[in-house]
Formats: sequence, C-alpha cells, structure tokens
Amino acid sequence: MIHGVITRICPAARVIDVTHGIRRHDIRSGAGILAQSLPFMPVGVHVAVVDPTVGGDRRAVALRTVDGRILVGPDNGVLWLACETLGGIEAAVEISQSPWRLTPVSATFHGRDIFAPVAAHLAAGDPLEEAGEKLPQGQLVRLQVPRPWIESGALVTQVSNGDRFGNAQLTAGRDDATLLELQLGDAVQVAIPTGENYVARFARTFSDVPEGELILFEDASHRLALGFNHGSATGRLSLRIGDEVRISRPGVDASGVVRPLRPRS
Amino acid sequence: MIHGVITRICPAARVIDVTHGIRRHDIRSGAGILAQSLPFMPVGVHVAVVDPTVGGDRRAVALRTVDGRILVGPDNGVLWLACETLGGIEAAVEISQSPWRLTPVSATFHGRDIFAPVAAHLAAGDPLEEAGEKLPQGQLVRLQVPRPWIESGALVTQVSNGDRFGNAQLTAGRDDATLLELQLGDAVQVAIPTGENYVARFARTFSDVPEGELILFEDASHRLALGFNHGSATGRLSLRIGDEVRISRPGVDASGVVRPLRPRS
Amino acid sequence: MIHGVITRICPAARVIDVTHGIRRHDIRSGAGILAQSLPFMPVGVHVAVVDPTVGGDRRAVALRTVDGRILVGPDNGVLWLACETLGGIEAAVEISQSPWRLTPVSATFHGRDIFAPVAAHLAAGDPLEEAGEKLPQGQLVRLQVPRPWIESGALVTQVSNGDRFGNAQLTAGRDDATLLELQLGDAVQVAIPTGENYVARFARTFSDVPEGELILFEDASHRLALGFNHGSATGRLSLRIGDEVRISRPGVDASGVVRPLRPRS
Repeated sequence: MIHGVITRICPAARVIDVTHGIRRHDIRSGAGILAQSLPFMPVGVHVAVVDPTVGGDRRAVALRTVDGRILVGPDNGVLWLACETLGGIEAAVEISQSPWRLTPVSATFHGRDIFAPVAAHLAAGDPLEEAGEKLPQGQLVRLQVPRPWIESGALVTQVSNGDRFGNAQLTAGRDDATLLELQLGDAVQVAIPTGENYVARFARTFSDVPEGELILFEDASHRLALGFNHGSATGRLSLRIGDEVRISRPGVDASGVVRPLRPRS
Repeated sequence: MIHGVITRICPAARVIDVTHGIRRHDIRSGAGILAQSLPFMPVGVHVAVVDPTVGGDRRAVALRTVDGRILVGPDNGVLWLACETLGGIEAAVEISQSPWRLTPVSATFHGRDIFAPVAAHLAAGDPLEEAGEKLPQGQLVRLQVPRPWIESGALVTQVSNGDRFGNAQLTAGRDDATLLELQLGDAVQVAIPTGENYVARFARTFSDVPEGELILFEDASHRLALGFNHGSATGRLSLRIGDEVRISRPGVDASGVVRPLRPRS
Repeated sequence: MIHGVITRICPAARVIDVTHGIRRHDIRSGAGILAQSLPFMPVGVHVAVVDPTVGGDRRAVALRTVDGRILVGPDNGVLWLACETLGGIEAAVEISQSPWRLTPVSATFHGRDIFAPVAAHLAAGDPLEEAGEKLPQGQLVRLQVPRPWIESGALVTQVSNGDRFGNAQLTAGRDDATLLELQLGDAVQVAIPTGENYVARFARTFSDVPEGELILFEDASHRLALGFNHGSATGRLSLRIGDEVRISRPGVDASGVVRPLRPRS
C-alpha cells in the first residue's frame, strides 16, 4: 500500500524497493542493509521501516544528510548507520504529527500513514522544514555497533547480518583481516558461541574452495563474511545476528595480549 | 510476465504490486486485502487473481465501480468486497473471449493471457464496453462474509485474514468492540475452535503489553485483530481463515441473550 | 541494489522483475524461465543472474539476439535457451572488464558491479560493441537439455522446472503427447526415479479432475506438466529438476522398441 500512497501524492515519483526481507524487530540488520545499499542508489528520498515494538512511543523522523539525501523512518536507530555512511545529518524533523500524514493515523501501520505520505511530499519538492517540528540532532536515537577487537591473538567480531544465501556478514572489515596477517588461501580457526571450532579457508570467493567447505571472504560490502560453498553458514553453524565469532590462525596461543582495534572510519 | 504483457500494450502504464502473498485458492483473503488496499491506491485499473480451481468454468470479468475505478479478474468473488467498498458496480463485462486476449489462451495462466492484456487496453483508455460482452450485475458471483454477532455475552466472529507477522484479522470491526463495552487495557477471554481459552489484553498496540502477551487490537484497516507482542498469533493459536473466535469479558455468563449485530456499513 | 544502479545510469529505464525465485545454482531452471518469459516481454535489455559457483572463472557477457533484444548475464548457459527461442545470437561481447563496470568489482556481486551498469548503458542506447571485447559465438557456454524420447512404449522425459504451486514442468511438449496417442481424459502411468508408479489423468486443467488427483496437462508454456488439483506434485512425488519421468499408457508392454523423438524446433 506504501507504493499506492506515494503515487497518489507524487505521481512522478519512482519507487525502488531495496528489500522486504528484514526480519521483524531487526533494527540492526535493517540499518546495516540500508547503509550498504544507499551509496548505490540514486540520490532521493529513502524510506526505511523496522519496528522494534510496533507502535511504541518512538518518534517518526525525516532527516537530510550532508550529501543531499532525505531519509524517512522511525527514530529507532534504523537510519543511523546510513546517515554515518552518507556524511552525517544536516537537519532533522519530527514528523509524528506531520501535516502531511494520513488521518486517522493507525496505531500499527505508520509506513502507510506517516512515512509514505511524508516521503511523497518531500519527493515532490516540498521543503523538509514543513514536514514537522525541527528536532535537535543530539536527541536522535543512535545505533551502537560494537567494533571488532583483537584478544589473545583472535579477532573478536559479531555477526551483523545474514543474507538469503546463508552467508553470515561480520562487523569486521577487510582491513581487520590484515591484523591477523591473513593471506588468501590461509586456513583460519572460527570459534562460535556454542563452543564449537571450525576451520575455514580465507578465500576470494566460493569457487576457490571445494564444495561444502567453509570460507571466510570479503563480501560485496567489503566486510568479512562466513559462507559455505553450496550451503548455508548461518544455518549449519546456527549463527544469529549479534553472535560473537572469534577468528584466529590455527593453533594460536589463547593467552595472547588484548589489542584494541583502531576505529573504522 | 504480467508486467511485461501490460507494458507491451500500454508502455505508459505504471504497474504497482499490492501483494503476491495470497495463498492459492484463498479467495476470501484476497478479496479482503483488495478491499482494504484499494482506497489507498490511485484510481486506476486493478487486476486481482486468486484461482479457486484453476481453469474452472468461472468467467473472467472487468467491472467499473461507481467511483470510477476498473477491476479485472475472475468472477469468483475476489473482486466483490472491493466493489462494495468502492460504492458498488456501475458496469460489468464478461472478458473470457475478449478481442484483446492473447491467443491461444492457455488453460492455466489467465493472468497473462486475459487479465493483463485487457487491463492494459483499459489503462490505455480503450472503452470498457469493447472489452467483451455486457454482463448483468445480478449474474456476478458474490462473496458472503458472515457478520459477527453477540451470543451469550460473547462477540462471535471469524478470522478473516492472517498477515506475515502472524496477526489474525477478525471480521469484527472496532465498533463491535463497543458492544462488549471494552475499554483499552481491559482483559478479554478469547475462545478458539480447539476449545482452548486465552486471556488477551484489549490494547492500542503491541508495545502496550509485555513481550509474549496476546493482544486484541484495532488494526490498520479498523478491524479487530489478535496478535502477540514478539510472536505469531496465527501460529501459536493454530488459527486459520474462517475459524470462529468468541470474545467475551472474563467470567461472562454463557447463558446470556443472543443479540444480533447491526450490519456494518 | 540492481534497480538503483540501473536508475542512476539510465533514469529513463523501466525495470521489470521477472522473478527472484530461481534457486541458487539452478542454471537450468533459470534458463527455462527466461526463455519462456521473454516472448511476453517488451523488446529491451534483459539481465539474468544464476550463479553456478559464485565468482568462478566464468565470463560475463552481453548478447544481441537476431530479434533485436539484448541479454546480459554470466556465460554459464543461463542465457542460452532464450537466445535459441529468440532466433539466435547476432553479436556477443565479453564484459568482465567492461569500461562501464563499477570498480572495484566485488568477487561475489557481479549483478551489481557488472551486469547492472552494462545493462543500463545499453538501455540508454550506448552501442553493444563498446561494452567490452568482441567474443566469437562458438566460445559461448551452451546449455544442453536432453530431448525426450520414446522407449518401450514410454515417453521418457525430465523435470525441467517446478513452480511455486508445486507443478512439475517436463521437457516434453504438447506434441510429444501425440506420440503416445493421448486424448484428453485418458489415464496415464507415470513412473518416477523412486521406482513408484502413479496414475494420472491427461486433462486440460485442474478443475477437470477431482480434488487430490494427479493430472498431466499442457502448461502455459505449451509444455507437459504434472500437477495435483489442490496439492503439490513436486512435493508429494519428491520430484527434483533433472529427474527422469516415464509416461506411458496403462499396461503398456515394457519391451517395446526405442523410438527417438524428432528434434523440437
């Protein structure tokens, strides 16, 4: 219905669906996919909805980023990582009581009643300042994603996302792999929360390892990820978003020194 | 392929997908979603397909509603509730042998061979009367949805739909809740066909109850619905479309007087 | 993200999704659906991606067919059947190093980094010859689909595809049914790889048989297919793509003469 509402208000708008595959309440996954997708999208008005506790007291917001995009959605952190990626926020407006909302606003479908009509008006060129009440940026809900670190010779990271192929994206990026001095083709130890240890191959892509082998690779968003050639890593290893994963060279001494990672820019 | 067929005939048409999530043969669910969605859609040509018994002898029809929309689909009831919502039918045409159909018409894919080309011609401005043979409205297949009623102090209603979040939409509307004199925050008894009784909270939205509690709420279509905060009501209660649900105040005397509900306009 | 990349390069392009339902690595299924869909699509630039072994050494290609369409995708056979259906290939270009690719090209998401930008440039009217290096057609990877044949009085064919309704499309077409001298309404024997034999009805469509009966029918692509009225043939018979299916008249003598089928044009 969101497409319909947008088209009624702004017939010239072109609506592009990025994904409908975010699991309910999974703010972190939605925030990650949004941040990784928008750089490939045309500059425009971007709507994101992930409900933490549907209809909760969280605000609805519209944000203008430094690079000229507008983001519309709940103020629950789902827009946060994208704003960081896009250079930061230039202006924020609270839109829960927007004059453009569809009334009566339902308690459970803000996508249809608030986000879609506000986004459509903004896409039609109406000024952000008229969408609602100005909001100090400091009041926005931030999303804190723990940075990976090195501990006892292991890279400690988390599962940040899972795709439909069963790849487990990690919070660690390709630069973090260099901290372990990994070379393509190296074997690595992967410890997961169940206490199990797996051996994976650090490889460029799936076809570099035999079918059924676990690989650690740099994914299309320049993050490290775990995947099986012809199989699901999230399924077989029962990995969930937020799970801690420890990656080390085989036989590493577990009593090593803890070394904090530099912040990723 | 329906998009492709439409675009070839009417390149200027804008195609908006409402849903591909209707279960096979589920006419009632499709009819409900269509009726609840179209008021939010731009006025246009709307195609709906739900096959009861694929390729059966049912007619294909195109209907013009009083508010100027055109609906195209099988004459199996799936268009009926939307026509009621949109003010009634102004003209009906049988299109099974439409001059605009793609020949040879396949036995199993009328969406591609009949509905899409007819809808595209109508979207391009060709007159409804040329789409096929005029059909008396009295011959259209109607969809009867049982209205809720009060019996022994309980509101007797049916599950009319399930969404992907596991919420069970009921045939009862928000006005029916007033018959039970329910106030937000009240506890209610919910009896389901298995013989089980649940306690639910009548609440505005999920975040008004603790995680894992059953709530009775007014959904975005102004219908009563059952849902779990962080869970699936249709899943946990094994509810299916058409299941009878009895809602009453806790400890209500089951020997109360039967009171028919007024028809919902 | 593919929509976004295309729209940035060619804002006037209209993007139509045929399907996102092809299973990973299932080249044969993707090739079949592409070949059966494109005749219903507007002439344009068509992108197909099915990864055999993601990021393997296969080439990326752009092909112009005799009927003026352009196909973009991996050189793994997924484009092959469509090219045959569309009259053959007129020109082929290797695009792995296309000047239009997004750099750095990721190892796992060629859809975003190669296929989408190349397709967008071609949709904008840029010449195929500038997309990359000319490639002799004889070097393209072909997809060999075994033709059905007659053996011991049985039509020996394979499952070529399964749809979301559980219908099992076969490699045999409607003409092959005439080799068995089948008439609508006839009963047929269906032998599957598990060794089980089923009786099916050769019928026009589902509503011609009682609920729960297996039917053999001509599907919307003029192929023979197995389906259950209200049920899944692929599910109940555990059929997978490539499985051999033998169809014969009941009580046929298994010692008959092998008769090769004529090639299907």
